[in-house]
Amino acid sequence: MTDITEIRAAAARGAGHLRRTPLLSSPFLDEIAGRRVLVKAECLQQTGSFKFRGAWSALSALAPEVRARGVIAYSSGNHAQGVALAAKLHGTSAVIVMPKDAPALKIANTRAYGAEVVLYDRATEDRDAIGQAIASERGLTLIKPYDEPMVIAGQGTSGLEIAEQAAELGVTTADVLIPCGGGGLTAGVALALEATAPGLRARPCEPEGYDDTARSVKAGERLSNASRASSLCDAIVTPTPGVLTFPIQQRLSGPGIVVTEEEVLRAMALAFQRLKITIEPGGAVGLAAALFHSAEIEGDAVICIASGGNVDTEVFLRALHLPES
Amino acid sequence: MTDITEIRAAAARGAGHLRRTPLLSSPFLDEIAGRRVLVKAECLQQTGSFKFRGAWSALSALAPEVRARGVIAYSSGNHAQGVALAAKLHGTSAVIVMPKDAPALKIANTRAYGAEVVLYDRATEDRDAIGQAIASERGLTLIKPYDEPMVIAGQGTSGLEIAEQAAELGVTTADVLIPCGGGGLTAGVALALEATAPGLRARPCEPEGYDDTARSVKAGERLSNASRASSLCDAIVTPTPGVLTFPIQQRLSGPGIVVTEEEVLRAMALAFQRLKITIEPGGAVGLAAALFHSAEIEGDAVICIASGGNVDTEVFLRALHLPES
Repeated sequence: MTDITEIRAAAARGAGHLRRTPLLSSPFLDEIAGRRVLVKAECLQQTGSFKFRGAWSALSALAPEVRARGVIAYSSGNHAQGVALAAKLHGTSAVIVMPKDAPALKIANTRAYGAEVVLYDRATEDRDAIGQAIASERGLTLIKPYDEPMVIAGQGTSGLEIAEQAAELGVTTADVLIPCGGGGLTAGVALALEATAPGLRARPCEPEGYDDTARSVKAGERLSNASRASSLCDAIVTPTPGVLTFPIQQRLSGPGIVVTEEEVLRAMALAFQRLKITIEPGGAVGLAAALFHSAEIEGDAVICIASGGNVDTEVFLRALHLPES
Repeated sequence: MTDITEIRAAAARGAGHLRRTPLLSSPFLDEIAGRRVLVKAECLQQTGSFKFRGAWSALSALAPEVRARGVIAYSSGNHAQGVALAAKLHGTSAVIVMPKDAPALKIANTRAYGAEVVLYDRATEDRDAIGQAIASERGLTLIKPYDEPMVIAGQGTSGLEIAEQAAELGVTTADVLIPCGGGGLTAGVALALEATAPGLRARPCEPEGYDDTARSVKAGERLSNASRASSLCDAIVTPTPGVLTFPIQQRLSGPGIVVTEEEVLRAMALAFQRLKITIEPGGAVGLAAALFHSAEIEGDAVICIASGGNVDTEVFLRALHLPES
């Protein structure tokens, strides 16, 4: 089980490699939300998402001789880029199994970071099976995207920073709104906050139609999404909460918040205009919840993790062209 | 004369108010530039530009009874927003004299921060004269945009951060490419670097047609721009280098670099795609110089200040629609 000791160890292994991302704000966003809004800009992390934290943590925890044989990962794109760059910086090789319909930018970046990319069909093939087959055949170590203790510990380093940065601003009580796919970020951050800022509560945020975590937390058991189609929020579409991540979320998370795609696009446009950052759709669900679901949130302040920024230009343009409302 | 003691005092007065902006990078930008590129993201500062540093420094240095009577500033938009928010946070009032053709977003934001906006015609009227008239009539203190020692000291706090952040990354020798209008940022940063990181050298960057500083540094005297028309790079269009800033630049700056508007737009698109930040045209001239004027730069690393991000959406769309080359 991942705990605060492992999160602190991941932070120590990441020193000089992980970027300390800023906690941003704008009075214009506060006004829309009706409370103080702080945005943890993980889109500014190396490779453009928080996933580099978990990837670095996992790679740096491997025994050198194991790491030298290479690693493999399966991912819609952000974990892919994180593992690819972490492998490159550790001087080893990476194979990445990606769905064919992943954003073109994410596939291109993963290759540019030096990884070998293997594409699969998200509707008909099982990425776990593909990944495990290649791993055993070539002697590679599989770096799972969220159900992996060292990955959860790495994502938790973002929570350590949030606790420190919120305290510097005098914020000790707040909901922390976290874009949630498999739950690695939510679980890691929730563990870090439990130990270092118990007044900050993690809350998973998801897009409509992919609210497996919100329903699972409510039901007390792991439920699945009906749809396996691709989504605007590609980064956080997973079939079901993780085996390791769900018990942590169930113990520590508040209720989930579910947002619409239009709310996501509006949050992206406001982040561009007011915070000067690029957020991808899946990374904007927390900010969308803060801005447009105020009634589901308590307290004077809210902290949103903007978890990634790897968006194709045409999708970003959809957000900027949305009429103001 | 502004010196390092005043810059350190400005940093101390700004603690808890100024945002420590991150130093970002991307291997994709390194590849284009042919050297390591570090980007100081001042677009993530409060109000979306470094100008908040100088405004906070100036306002916080006033005697309380003087500050309580209110302040006035003239600005194309970023100094305006910086002074407006600094005044609001100090509980006093601000009048801002702005050109009629300033970006709509900057005018709207300045009003939204609570300031009274007075518009003037950039081609036919003298903003200094207008500002001084209102100031004396109402008993307001004029906060000049760059020829003001406390403003230069405030802009220098960005240089203190650059010196620390570069050292953490092991960079001790580099050119620091700085978008330059009146020279407050260039002068303040140059003074901070002289005292804390002597291997880092400030270099002013300007758009074609508005290269008064580059020509002045070369000539050893203050020269003016021929054009007074508005420019894509509105934030850094000033008629001539400042009286206080120019001697500092002349003593400490390397040669200026002049970029085209197309290079500016391409730099904005790359910052969006690779760094996940929004830069306005005037704030992108340093990055444009790093990416497209490699032959004018020496050394293995370069540091660009992305000085602001307050761009109207339609201008940003021009950058995103630019064909890749």
